[in-house]
Amino acid sequence: MKDTNRLRDTFEETEYQLAGHGKRTARILKEAFAQVDDGLKSDHYGEGQVIDAFQDKMAKLLGKEETVFFPSGTMAQQIALRIWSDEEGIRKVGYHPLSHLEIHEENGLQELHGIQSILLADRNSIITLEDIVNMQEKVACILLELPQREIGGQLPDYKTLEDISAYCREHGIRLHLDGARLLEVLPYYGKTAAEISALFDSVYISVYKGIGGIAGAVLAGNAEFIQQSKVWKRRHGGDLISLYPYIVSADYYFDQRVNQMRRYYEDATELAGYFNNVPAVTTLPEVPVSNMFHVHIALPEEQAAEAIAAAQEQTGIGITGYVRKIDDHNCYFEVSLGDQYANLSAAEVRKVFQQFDSEIKKVMS
Amino acid sequence: MKDTNRLRDTFEETEYQLAGHGKRTARILKEAFAQVDDGLKSDHYGEGQVIDAFQDKMAKLLGKEETVFFPSGTMAQQIALRIWSDEEGIRKVGYHPLSHLEIHEENGLQELHGIQSILLADRNSIITLEDIVNMQEKVACILLELPQREIGGQLPDYKTLEDISAYCREHGIRLHLDGARLLEVLPYYGKTAAEISALFDSVYISVYKGIGGIAGAVLAGNAEFIQQSKVWKRRHGGDLISLYPYIVSADYYFDQRVNQMRRYYEDATELAGYFNNVPAVTTLPEVPVSNMFHVHIALPEEQAAEAIAAAQEQTGIGITGYVRKIDDHNCYFEVSLGDQYANLSAAEVRKVFQQFDSEIKKVMS
Repeated sequence: MKDTNRLRDTFEETEYQLAGHGKRTARILKEAFAQVDDGLKSDHYGEGQVIDAFQDKMAKLLGKEETVFFPSGTMAQQIALRIWSDEEGIRKVGYHPLSHLEIHEENGLQELHGIQSILLADRNSIITLEDIVNMQEKVACILLELPQREIGGQLPDYKTLEDISAYCREHGIRLHLDGARLLEVLPYYGKTAAEISALFDSVYISVYKGIGGIAGAVLAGNAEFIQQSKVWKRRHGGDLISLYPYIVSADYYFDQRVNQMRRYYEDATELAGYFNNVPAVTTLPEVPVSNMFHVHIALPEEQAAEAIAAAQEQTGIGITGYVRKIDDHNCYFEVSLGDQYANLSAAEVRKVFQQFDSEIKKVMS
Repeated sequence: MKDTNRLRDTFEETEYQLAGHGKRTARILKEAFAQVDDGLKSDHYGEGQVIDAFQDKMAKLLGKEETVFFPSGTMAQQIALRIWSDEEGIRKVGYHPLSHLEIHEENGLQELHGIQSILLADRNSIITLEDIVNMQEKVACILLELPQREIGGQLPDYKTLEDISAYCREHGIRLHLDGARLLEVLPYYGKTAAEISALFDSVYISVYKGIGGIAGAVLAGNAEFIQQSKVWKRRHGGDLISLYPYIVSADYYFDQRVNQMRRYYEDATELAGYFNNVPAVTTLPEVPVSNMFHVHIALPEEQAAEAIAAAQEQTGIGITGYVRKIDDHNCYFEVSLGDQYANLSAAEVRKVFQQFDSEIKKVMS
């Protein structure tokens, strides 16, 4: 615990960081609102120009009839699965064992909606067509997460996506996209957001991952689905009188970053290469397919933390503020590339990795 | 519909309005953040200094062990009722027929929590001790709304509150306060927020009614209740990565307005007097007990709208932007006093009511 706090403290004291868009401070909001007219009218319980315009923009991006802005992805996705479950009259949905719904939502899907999850694939693998074909139970809907965040952001190939989509349509199974990081995988697939969304009945994207907004989510689908989702949004307590603080900032940072996703992806590939050259360190995936990956260190978390903290102190460049224990001999942390990497010269990046390399060797010796 | 839009348009074009704190625009957010340091750290999934400090401040105000900030009152209250229902093992709660939960939440309490509502009192009356004593069904919890908004903001006397509280404690019924407008009723009762909250097991207050923030709610109770409410907040999708846009603005406007509630109440009393002097117009309650009341007009909505729109056009002072039909011969609108009334001189107020009086007489003739 002491070492973990030292790791966090040394990270917070660094002037530059390898990953991310920068610290989550009030600056994010103030910058987004600096150009906004004082007289801009608030949205009002889901209506008004500020929310309509952004929802329309996202509908065009995703190639769906309509979208609705939600305060959170947790809310948006439970609601999508509830609508498809009600439609089918089956309170079962299939998703990955490490889906956000399974591990980060306190079992809300079951507790609020009475929907049972059927876990597809091994927790360390991505979902294949075979996993779906071999399901023993009938489900109303399958949720695919692209990329699969908790295993480093892995992706199926595009052919697999098409096959899964075709299979689900043939078999009357709705397909929902957990696209929290959808924009971030477009460069790898070489597809538009609309092309990928077309394989799914409903799509969720986050506005504060690669886009770097404050909070919020967008749910997309056909008009009937979206109409129902608004009723459920009200029921969940998500139909706030004003969501504009999130919408204005989402729109502002979307415009800044929507065309930066290729750069983040290329930077991730480069940065993963640096990590893979350090002893005891590997990335998952080895070659990233988006702006993210996990860094695995074959050392006890205390030793890994010590090495990283020392490297951060020596260089003033931030690698991570935490490591998470896997077992007594292994730990990991997550990296998501953003605007900050471009602020570092190649020499500075080499410097931090030389120091990291030497600190790792120290704790291993 | 044509007249209704004219009413809205004439209202929006007025320079001054009798009620409210002013238009809900981005100015509200920008003013609250003008003094905030760029480096202020965001809260992070319910943790961090910015949310802790406000929650502690609200706990002191309400005299409860702990509080939690929610994006909406809808979410906070459903969760409070769910916790008490689970504790008691009874999925039934009692509240007023015009409770927010009954008429504005798309039946979320039933659809998400499987909780049945038992309606207490006639829809035009406030809940009495007798209504509770005479209940035919056992409920886990009773929700009292102070003031009862949908009937103009009426209140029971303090003795009734004490008696209901004592009865519920004796009979193992949890008592929850829908105190969306709790601060607004303190001057009438001559009590502190903590004194009134002490009669209840759990309390919700809104931060965007009298306080005039952007959105959000505070739920208060004992430590065990609040711990559970945080789990449910996560399940509902309300545990956002960042709630600070709402918290910072709530805190800013709370400090500005917490001591203005007596003035709003006195202004409401004065303003209701003006309305009651106009032919065909009465207020509910006749003498307000908070900053709010309803204005009833014994005319078809089109005629009432015509008279109000004309008065607004003639004087440049806003009375209301809508009227709601009750039946073919009656309509009403709601008035909540805020900062704006003090911007008008007595002469200006008299002027708008002279004009309103003459326009009402015109449409009646």
